[in-house]
Amino acid sequence: MKGRVFSGARPTGKQHIGNYLGAIQNYVKLQDEYECIYCIVDIHALTTLEDLDQLQPNIREMMLDWLAAGLDPEKSILFVQSHVPEVTELHTLLSMITPLGWLLRVPTFKEKARQQPENVNYGLVGYPVLQTADIILYKANMVPVGEDQLPHLELAREIVRRFNNLIAPVFPEPQAKLTTAPMIRGLDGQNKMSKSLDNHIELAATPKETEKRIKTAFTDPQRKFRTDPGRPEVCNVYDLHGFYDSEKLEEISQQCRAATIGCVDCKKMLSKEINNAMEPFRERRAEIAMRSGYLEEVMADGAERAGVIAKETIREVKEKMCLL
Amino acid sequence: MKGRVFSGARPTGKQHIGNYLGAIQNYVKLQDEYECIYCIVDIHALTTLEDLDQLQPNIREMMLDWLAAGLDPEKSILFVQSHVPEVTELHTLLSMITPLGWLLRVPTFKEKARQQPENVNYGLVGYPVLQTADIILYKANMVPVGEDQLPHLELAREIVRRFNNLIAPVFPEPQAKLTTAPMIRGLDGQNKMSKSLDNHIELAATPKETEKRIKTAFTDPQRKFRTDPGRPEVCNVYDLHGFYDSEKLEEISQQCRAATIGCVDCKKMLSKEINNAMEPFRERRAEIAMRSGYLEEVMADGAERAGVIAKETIREVKEKMCLL
Repeated sequence: MKGRVFSGARPTGKQHIGNYLGAIQNYVKLQDEYECIYCIVDIHALTTLEDLDQLQPNIREMMLDWLAAGLDPEKSILFVQSHVPEVTELHTLLSMITPLGWLLRVPTFKEKARQQPENVNYGLVGYPVLQTADIILYKANMVPVGEDQLPHLELAREIVRRFNNLIAPVFPEPQAKLTTAPMIRGLDGQNKMSKSLDNHIELAATPKETEKRIKTAFTDPQRKFRTDPGRPEVCNVYDLHGFYDSEKLEEISQQCRAATIGCVDCKKMLSKEINNAMEPFRERRAEIAMRSGYLEEVMADGAERAGVIAKETIREVKEKMCLL
Repeated sequence: MKGRVFSGARPTGKQHIGNYLGAIQNYVKLQDEYECIYCIVDIHALTTLEDLDQLQPNIREMMLDWLAAGLDPEKSILFVQSHVPEVTELHTLLSMITPLGWLLRVPTFKEKARQQPENVNYGLVGYPVLQTADIILYKANMVPVGEDQLPHLELAREIVRRFNNLIAPVFPEPQAKLTTAPMIRGLDGQNKMSKSLDNHIELAATPKETEKRIKTAFTDPQRKFRTDPGRPEVCNVYDLHGFYDSEKLEEISQQCRAATIGCVDCKKMLSKEINNAMEPFRERRAEIAMRSGYLEEVMADGAERAGVIAKETIREVKEKMCLL
């Protein structure tokens, strides 16, 4: 039997190439080897109550990007968290066996509580419990995570062990599948690419928009004049070449160091390569966006298939907790 | 339009005369004036994971007592909390707007955390949030409470105000309907009557069992001999006469003070009165217990009717939180 992969992502709207290279690309690959369940976690998005009116558009844009990027609703279950309300049932039941102390010690919680002490809601403390419910409701064996998510997954495993010990051995311990995805720096050359820092390139951007964004990218700050030799090893644009022109990478490196190409030329090449690479994606995206009712159909079908698994797990959990 | 009353009670199994005089009697009366929703809160029972295997029998015995005592499934909605899973959905959504600080300040939480610091689960902190969800899922206007429950209800009202302000004015603020029920002391003469202290008289006890229990009751500790005058004002048995022989109360008081009756006589009179009062209850209870499948039917019908209201509220909440 195939292993089962679960991954959830917050509905951040249109995805960028950082999301693609860091996560979506990997999601697509996993589809061949595993039974994959990919979830847009809209309830998690409520831990901050900002821009609620953007929630639905963000979910749609994200699902559209997922589909255009190759997530296949025939192979995988693609759905929206709140459409399978059993996750809140499991969240509430798991809350009964999860020590508060475990949650207060989670680094991301401590960090958020430090930054915005006035904004610490009960739901923020329970974030890892809801995440655990997401994963184990589907009895997933495997969760693709970046290193920063490892503490959350370890907590999920602890909750599973506690449930299995205290109540009954219902859940498999989900294993981390560490993704080797490198950190994708944003156009500021400093930070991880992210929509909130506005240092990103959207997957769905037009060729012109893409070119325009890349023109603004920071490169080697020491290369002030066209004739200065560059240092590819610190250059963000050079990094991106690595993902899109890997064959020409050595050549670009030499030309940069020798100052036979300037940053403007180098960025033009990158824009061209990214636009070439994104062309099939953009066509698929436009094509899918045109199909009236298709997104709704995909999401409804995903929720239905996820719901079948969820209902069976909940039945088992309730039985073992003597609620049936 | 009739106001709507909600009350929840933990599944403690066979009810005792303290439960009846303190709560159930009042539940029965409210049925004529209000639309009443009475819930056996089995999920709340999971905050302590003891005696899980007694949970289902306890739910059944309690429902049987409720029905025999006059809770009428034709007038009121009688159901079991976990049978309407929307409450966990609302619990999870409310968790996003409930400050952790509010919950950590609840006196009952602080008391439990002090008594059993190793047993503080996330769900224990969230107890008042789940209670709030219980009440407002049905948009109840009125909650019959004893004074000890007032802080919980005040917290529910605060959560409602916060939701109505932050999201949208969806919920009425539930009002406390203070029950005037006196504290019913147990047979130990010291503590509130309670099953866990084994100082109780079960509603469903046989006349013989009732007599036997009452024989063990503590009375005035200063009345050591039959010839000593008694002090009805400190006597637990005298208190109980107040509920069952109120007409003879003055006479009993005089006879006790004059030592013309002893405690044994006095207890015999009480047993007789309680057994008389309970006779119709016991007959109804036996009769209902005989009807095969009837309890299940009542609970399924209650869950269905509660579910209709719950689904509509959840739809509204999800819409306002932009989950739809």
